[in-house]
Amino acid sequence: MTRPVQTAVMGVSGYAGMELARLLLHHPRLKGAPPLFLGRTDAETPLTAMHPQLMDNNGAASLKVEPFAWELLKERGVDVLFLATPHEQSREWAPKALERGLRVIDLSGAWRLRKAAHRAVYKFEDDGHQKAVAVQAKAVYGSPELHREEIRGAELVANPGCYATSVILGLKPLIAAGWVDLDRGIVCDAKSGVSGAGKAPTEKTHYMYAADNLSAYGVFAHRHVGELLEQLELTEEQIVFTPHLLPIPRGILSTIYVSFKEKKSGSEIEQRYREFYAESPLVRVFAAGQLPQIQYSARTNYCDIGFALNKDGRRCVIVSCLDNLLKGAAGQAVENLNLMYGWGEAEGLA
Amino acid sequence: MTRPVQTAVMGVSGYAGMELARLLLHHPRLKGAPPLFLGRTDAETPLTAMHPQLMDNNGAASLKVEPFAWELLKERGVDVLFLATPHEQSREWAPKALERGLRVIDLSGAWRLRKAAHRAVYKFEDDGHQKAVAVQAKAVYGSPELHREEIRGAELVANPGCYATSVILGLKPLIAAGWVDLDRGIVCDAKSGVSGAGKAPTEKTHYMYAADNLSAYGVFAHRHVGELLEQLELTEEQIVFTPHLLPIPRGILSTIYVSFKEKKSGSEIEQRYREFYAESPLVRVFAAGQLPQIQYSARTNYCDIGFALNKDGRRCVIVSCLDNLLKGAAGQAVENLNLMYGWGEAEGLA
Amino acid sequence: MTRPVQTAVMGVSGYAGMELARLLLHHPRLKGAPPLFLGRTDAETPLTAMHPQLMDNNGAASLKVEPFAWELLKERGVDVLFLATPHEQSREWAPKALERGLRVIDLSGAWRLRKAAHRAVYKFEDDGHQKAVAVQAKAVYGSPELHREEIRGAELVANPGCYATSVILGLKPLIAAGWVDLDRGIVCDAKSGVSGAGKAPTEKTHYMYAADNLSAYGVFAHRHVGELLEQLELTEEQIVFTPHLLPIPRGILSTIYVSFKEKKSGSEIEQRYREFYAESPLVRVFAAGQLPQIQYSARTNYCDIGFALNKDGRRCVIVSCLDNLLKGAAGQAVENLNLMYGWGEAEGLA
Amino acid sequence: MTRPVQTAVMGVSGYAGMELARLLLHHPRLKGAPPLFLGRTDAETPLTAMHPQLMDNNGAASLKVEPFAWELLKERGVDVLFLATPHEQSREWAPKALERGLRVIDLSGAWRLRKAAHRAVYKFEDDGHQKAVAVQAKAVYGSPELHREEIRGAELVANPGCYATSVILGLKPLIAAGWVDLDRGIVCDAKSGVSGAGKAPTEKTHYMYAADNLSAYGVFAHRHVGELLEQLELTEEQIVFTPHLLPIPRGILSTIYVSFKEKKSGSEIEQRYREFYAESPLVRVFAAGQLPQIQYSARTNYCDIGFALNKDGRRCVIVSCLDNLLKGAAGQAVENLNLMYGWGEAEGLA
Repeated sequence: MTRPVQTAVMGVSGYAGMELARLLLHHPRLKGAPPLFLGRTDAETPLTAMHPQLMDNNGAASLKVEPFAWELLKERGVDVLFLATPHEQSREWAPKALERGLRVIDLSGAWRLRKAAHRAVYKFEDDGHQKAVAVQAKAVYGSPELHREEIRGAELVANPGCYATSVILGLKPLIAAGWVDLDRGIVCDAKSGVSGAGKAPTEKTHYMYAADNLSAYGVFAHRHVGELLEQLELTEEQIVFTPHLLPIPRGILSTIYVSFKEKKSGSEIEQRYREFYAESPLVRVFAAGQLPQIQYSARTNYCDIGFALNKDGRRCVIVSCLDNLLKGAAGQAVENLNLMYGWGEAEGLA
Repeated sequence: MTRPVQTAVMGVSGYAGMELARLLLHHPRLKGAPPLFLGRTDAETPLTAMHPQLMDNNGAASLKVEPFAWELLKERGVDVLFLATPHEQSREWAPKALERGLRVIDLSGAWRLRKAAHRAVYKFEDDGHQKAVAVQAKAVYGSPELHREEIRGAELVANPGCYATSVILGLKPLIAAGWVDLDRGIVCDAKSGVSGAGKAPTEKTHYMYAADNLSAYGVFAHRHVGELLEQLELTEEQIVFTPHLLPIPRGILSTIYVSFKEKKSGSEIEQRYREFYAESPLVRVFAAGQLPQIQYSARTNYCDIGFALNKDGRRCVIVSCLDNLLKGAAGQAVENLNLMYGWGEAEGLA
Repeated sequence: MTRPVQTAVMGVSGYAGMELARLLLHHPRLKGAPPLFLGRTDAETPLTAMHPQLMDNNGAASLKVEPFAWELLKERGVDVLFLATPHEQSREWAPKALERGLRVIDLSGAWRLRKAAHRAVYKFEDDGHQKAVAVQAKAVYGSPELHREEIRGAELVANPGCYATSVILGLKPLIAAGWVDLDRGIVCDAKSGVSGAGKAPTEKTHYMYAADNLSAYGVFAHRHVGELLEQLELTEEQIVFTPHLLPIPRGILSTIYVSFKEKKSGSEIEQRYREFYAESPLVRVFAAGQLPQIQYSARTNYCDIGFALNKDGRRCVIVSCLDNLLKGAAGQAVENLNLMYGWGEAEGLA
Repeated sequence: MTRPVQTAVMGVSGYAGMELARLLLHHPRLKGAPPLFLGRTDAETPLTAMHPQLMDNNGAASLKVEPFAWELLKERGVDVLFLATPHEQSREWAPKALERGLRVIDLSGAWRLRKAAHRAVYKFEDDGHQKAVAVQAKAVYGSPELHREEIRGAELVANPGCYATSVILGLKPLIAAGWVDLDRGIVCDAKSGVSGAGKAPTEKTHYMYAADNLSAYGVFAHRHVGELLEQLELTEEQIVFTPHLLPIPRGILSTIYVSFKEKKSGSEIEQRYREFYAESPLVRVFAAGQLPQIQYSARTNYCDIGFALNKDGRRCVIVSCLDNLLKGAAGQAVENLNLMYGWGEAEGLA
């Protein structure tokens, strides 16, 4: 019997990092090989000091977050490194990890975008340099539903953005079928819980700002738009995406408006979704006319998709929901891990 | 000196009724003439037993909700009757009140729609009968910004729907200017707090359903669509409207997507809004690029309007916010009262 | 190899029933023997139609809630019946189930109280009848931390109340040690999320009532007081218990005020708790001066206990938290199941 | 006719400052003399840039926050200065303002406490210095219900703490009557909304920390305890006070447990409260057995008081509610202003 895969997580202090820790600690394939938790700290810290929610009476209390060092990774025999770090840091560290023979699953936006124009929003200093170009070429966009086979062999997986996942999974089957009238434009009105805004206390994450409120932000300028364009093969003219900050802890609901070139029936659309996701254990397709809600997928690893069709058979409203920290981040990262090591796609996630 | 106008409110038990009571009790023109509060009860009930929030130490405790009777209205010299009642009841009672010489401000959907096809959703038994036709012909849609002059002389004001108000005020200036490319379609993605769902305890108003959740409902089938079509002079093909239930007590935010026929600048659009609402004290236009949020207009009588323009100068996202119980119901009703009696439009509301 | 234990759940429609379904469906000892879900319906209903949150892509969709019938239980070889039913129904059905040789875990208040005076609040018609007396004598109060051994052999387990669990687990070690000055009185100020108020839509569970609010209720008259008196061996004069309705979905925090007869140190108290709960895998004792919060135990099966000691060494504030639907209901019920069948106390719960 | 009183507010950026601005802008006695808003800024800032909630269409948009300077106060003829500043700053500035002949209403804890031992928690560098002693001697604790007459003539009013107000108003009538058995101890279990934790983004004010949560803090060590001891004339042994952070924007509910020396009836207690507060327009006494809730007093200037009495006639639970930013801060400050200038106590507040 071979030794289990050794995982490491850099950046366990944030919300996605916490969920990733939780998932990896309970993953059936990682029994006996707890993840190595790393942070930019000078000294070891108990993991539960950072996240009291991770306490249990079975040893989790003894888990540590250790100061990051490449030697430590080597010493512990790390196979795969999760980067739950800001995109600037991921941009710097992923190449170093690859050089050391590690496989990398990066949860930031650092390596998601093929086109420099789309990446411009991130202002990477290295963009265009030979090494960055080479690394970018290796990066696989970690959407299992779209790139399952490439992910299996990937060295570097760029885990998708949370908003982007909800929109891409809602639209891909219909666009790929050639049904959508792209000239009429697609509208994506998306709403996310506050955990999507990160753990740093800011004006926007203050309870008094977020509670009893709703606000649109980043209109015509959100970082995730590039992912939509590349993965859905659209031009900027063909889609509008508006995110909103919801007064809830977690969950995304995207309401997506499309027009079809030709009249469709509800059962045709449902059938199309079911076929497209037949091999995807973490997408739940709703019956025609039934719509997902945030509460159904919150705290699960599923993306839920439903739709309503106008009586004209042309105009369709798609509703796509997921948990931004799970299917939108840590859950999808573990799904990618499963694919990379040949395990069941939903192991440790259902 | 003439006697003050005598108001009466039928249906004070709901949320809009409560806000109406609060506004009328503090209205500077109604000092010395407290509203007559009416309900379908057998016996007098203290108003504060129904709404403890209305308690004060200045006499509100002595206010009663009295059993409805036409004689009582006559006896008390009622001039104007607010109906904060279900639409079926408003449909029946408004004609009776008009016959008795009362002016009526109806907060339900009973008399808002000119076209029978749009009214079909309400299934009025009397629709098409001669008397109903005559009353409908008298009804003025109570949007002060659109119909200020007709409201002044109206006998029957049909107070607009809350969602409809937010969408109509956000769109009217741009559509009326002929700027909007209606062939590309308008998308209205609207979100409302739970008070919009009414006071009756139901599955949807249960805390466990609404909290930490977001859900779309009534897709392609919401009652307010008829108001949008009539007031904005659109066809059903030109607009899609999707309401969502927000986990907050009150407030509506509508995100509205339009395309312009020709390129516009932010200052042109802002200027257009400012001119259109120059005489409207209860609409606040935001500077180009600044967007309203629910928290700014919640518990006020304002409708807030802002927008963001794509760099192409063609695609525009309009954000319109209001408090569904105030500008979306009771506040707008008092605004109509002010117009009907020649008072300042914002008296008792700012 | 013996066949797995066959469970059945009557009353799966409520919140505790839903959590029970979730726990039993994932319980490692029940693989291959999904619970029989029963309701007072005329026809089979998909479980996920009742609780969309229970959807998964692995067969849960095919689970049914079947009309209750004693024959059906026999036919399916049911060993143990969970009653997640109103106390009146549990009072009637538990004896019938015992007669049929089933073991019963009752989540209601029907069988928790030994003294008729304490039971008076429930107004059982059968109280005092010979059969009821006999059944009551068999009932074991299902607090594993207090009655572990009796539960192992029990035919009828009366699963504790949610509030009662938080207070009893917070107080028992200190009272049993004889430390608490009972003459000075104990104050229990408890706060619970809305799921504790049940799934029926009522005035109190309406979002508009519960949100942005806090209210005390049942002062000097809450049903759970009898459990406190019996399990803590107190008189009514020695304890005051006040519950409050919190604007959150789930979780209880009880703040408990005691005075010690003699001065104690923080480490003595912490040590006492640790010893008392040394064999209890689902109680987490916090270090002296660290206090649990609702967010730490929400959605877990743990009861968290911490305390702060005044510098006088006499006055102590104990904070006890748990999830009202899990450790306060379904989780504790499964813990009892584990004990009844000789499994690890925390199996399927950690 | 004399000129209106000229007010100034230093520290308008916080939540209490915002509410103070709102109240003063609408105060009937201050028409024509808008407050001077001051901050530690280098340049003028529009007030509505700081608080968009204060926008209206009637000139509020033109209000400025100006850089603080003593000359400016003189130039504008300021009569009374509100300090909505941190206690260190209030400690420094109040004496300077008094020297310049201004009257001061300080919303911080700087001058509330007569005894140095109670003030120790604030660590004032000047404590004990002659000047500080002299200023402290002039300070009047700004609880209108307790010190109405002294406030009228005060130069320096120390506006009470929010928690302290709720507890003091709930207890004072019963303690002053000599009814409470102080030897048995009083327990005050208080809960406050997040605005009480201030506007600075911190770990505790992050939405993800506060939402869906409840936590106790500052047990046996809260700053407000000194106010309770001084105003209620208690020793530290006689009262325990535990604050909790509620997941709501605003409002305090204090649940207070007392024992009476002798048996009392509900009507005696109610009568005692009514007499004690007969001249207090901003305290609402509830009928025996009816309890206030946070939603009744939120966004009002009232303190609501109710109680439940055990059938033994000895043990009594008092519930006291107020809005921490209004009766607990800005509203009470304006009440003090009203008294200082001989106006009606509730003017601009009901």
